[in-house]
Amino acid sequence: MNIAVLGLGLIGGSLLRGLAALKVHQVLGFDADPAIRALARDAAARLPAASRWQVAGTVRDAAADADLVVLAVPLPALDSVLDALVSSGFRGLITDVTSVKGPVREAVARRLERAANPVAGYVGGHPMAGREKSGFGNSDPALFTGAAWVLCLDDPVSLDDWLTVAELVTQLGARVVPSTTPEHDRAVAAISHVPHLVASAMAANAADDLLALTLAAGSFRDGTRVAASRPDLVAAMCSGNADAVRDSLRALRERLDEVELALESRDSLKKIRDWAQEGHAARMAWPPDPGRPQEVPVQPETLLRLGRAGGWITMVAPDRRTVTGFLPVRSA
Amino acid sequence: MNIAVLGLGLIGGSLLRGLAALKVHQVLGFDADPAIRALARDAAARLPAASRWQVAGTVRDAAADADLVVLAVPLPALDSVLDALVSSGFRGLITDVTSVKGPVREAVARRLERAANPVAGYVGGHPMAGREKSGFGNSDPALFTGAAWVLCLDDPVSLDDWLTVAELVTQLGARVVPSTTPEHDRAVAAISHVPHLVASAMAANAADDLLALTLAAGSFRDGTRVAASRPDLVAAMCSGNADAVRDSLRALRERLDEVELALESRDSLKKIRDWAQEGHAARMAWPPDPGRPQEVPVQPETLLRLGRAGGWITMVAPDRRTVTGFLPVRSA
Repeated sequence: MNIAVLGLGLIGGSLLRGLAALKVHQVLGFDADPAIRALARDAAARLPAASRWQVAGTVRDAAADADLVVLAVPLPALDSVLDALVSSGFRGLITDVTSVKGPVREAVARRLERAANPVAGYVGGHPMAGREKSGFGNSDPALFTGAAWVLCLDDPVSLDDWLTVAELVTQLGARVVPSTTPEHDRAVAAISHVPHLVASAMAANAADDLLALTLAAGSFRDGTRVAASRPDLVAAMCSGNADAVRDSLRALRERLDEVELALESRDSLKKIRDWAQEGHAARMAWPPDPGRPQEVPVQPETLLRLGRAGGWITMVAPDRRTVTGFLPVRSA
Repeated sequence: MNIAVLGLGLIGGSLLRGLAALKVHQVLGFDADPAIRALARDAAARLPAASRWQVAGTVRDAAADADLVVLAVPLPALDSVLDALVSSGFRGLITDVTSVKGPVREAVARRLERAANPVAGYVGGHPMAGREKSGFGNSDPALFTGAAWVLCLDDPVSLDDWLTVAELVTQLGARVVPSTTPEHDRAVAAISHVPHLVASAMAANAADDLLALTLAAGSFRDGTRVAASRPDLVAAMCSGNADAVRDSLRALRERLDEVELALESRDSLKKIRDWAQEGHAARMAWPPDPGRPQEVPVQPETLLRLGRAGGWITMVAPDRRTVTGFLPVRSA
């Protein structure tokens, strides 16, 4: 396949490196920043010819011969890249790696309705492989090994397009999780977006007390680690998923209200201990172990059921009739 | 010095090991659980004679020849151990390692008022060196190396007693942070107790959604790590510090309310980004670098000022007139 990666930050850069290292695809990258393009060209030049990538100077040049375009720009930059892509006459397949799927799906749909050149299709994707250090300079071809990578199978995504992207993602060593746009967005609000906001709030809360910052140890270090993420990236993912983030924040606040009541009770020792059991049990059972591999028929509802049950896919069979799936086994 | 460590969990066990490894003190341990005592005896027997500790079968035996007793039991067990200690006629110095200082100070004061045998004194302490894995089996003589260790210098703590404990703590490689009971309790609410509650709430929030648990990656892993702590230990530290924990929870909730409003704004991208700056800056500047060593005169107000400014002590001069202190330098 000819694959173009648009946007060469941590995720796009890692994807460029990882795809090129497979040595089976033609891989080409683009970034709006000339300095990043120069970095990416220099990095390619230091590699053996078989695992090099090309770097294009425009979206049009990048997409010209591409079968698949991966949008790897932050959400706020997506509209302009999509405009450039559609106006270039691109007719291939589009996927993306943005951490929220609703707005991307809408943005793509708006453009495709208007476009004189209907593209082959769009499959929304999201690799769960962030780091608090962003940028091409921190990119890593092995970033996706073992990572969960959501691929949305909403109506009207074509199953064939979905399988094409799923094959590619499994080649990178990632675990494909079939989901829908709203289910994905709700899940990542709870496990990524709210944790980012909470980390930032806890770090800010300690900031005024120099004694506290000196006493801060493991629980502060880990609980606030992702507060080091760039505020503009945190803002992009949370504002793009505002409804789900708000619901998840409210659910969190309800739990914290419960423990505040428990703190005020005469029986606080027992009440707090009881309150803490659920989170303790959940954390002890995480991450889930993979169960045995199973052959799963390629049917949208079956695949979505697998994803809803916490399952994932590691391989698409060559005939595309089945995939190799796993269901999680709770360890505790 | 003859030192008795009462309670041989993670902290008490590590202290037993660390103090014995110094080879300059007589070190003796006690735990209410005979199985733990047997473990501690077996562990000692495997060491060279010079770095062994003794294990006593009762609090009375443990304290009989001790100059210093370290209370290393969880808060709920403290009263009974203190009763046994006072009724044994102990007249030496008491310190503790409990994560909240107000209730311990009160419990000690109540007993000393009643006691026919006034003890030499009490110095409240708290090493910031927890781990989510508890118990003697996880203890480590190097647990305190580089760790901050609060020693409370409230009126009426004797400066001489304080220096005795401070010397010992610096021998273990820890950084002594002079503070007062209320200032300590407020600081640890923000950097330890609330992070434990939040981790538990976030883990519980994700627990019902199997998809979310499969997608959970770095921000969930780190943000919920301390939810693996034993619920009874979390309950003990939070209920013992209920007022400060409640205040800190409320401050956190106010920040989360702010970002919820920002999420609902039309200008959410900019508003969330602005909101996230404070936590980002605080986390990037943490941990602070040590400045240059300075000679600090041994005066309670000077020492407390050092602690309030985020400073710490690494050595007590042999003449006890000065200490070697450091002030943090914000790195970012």
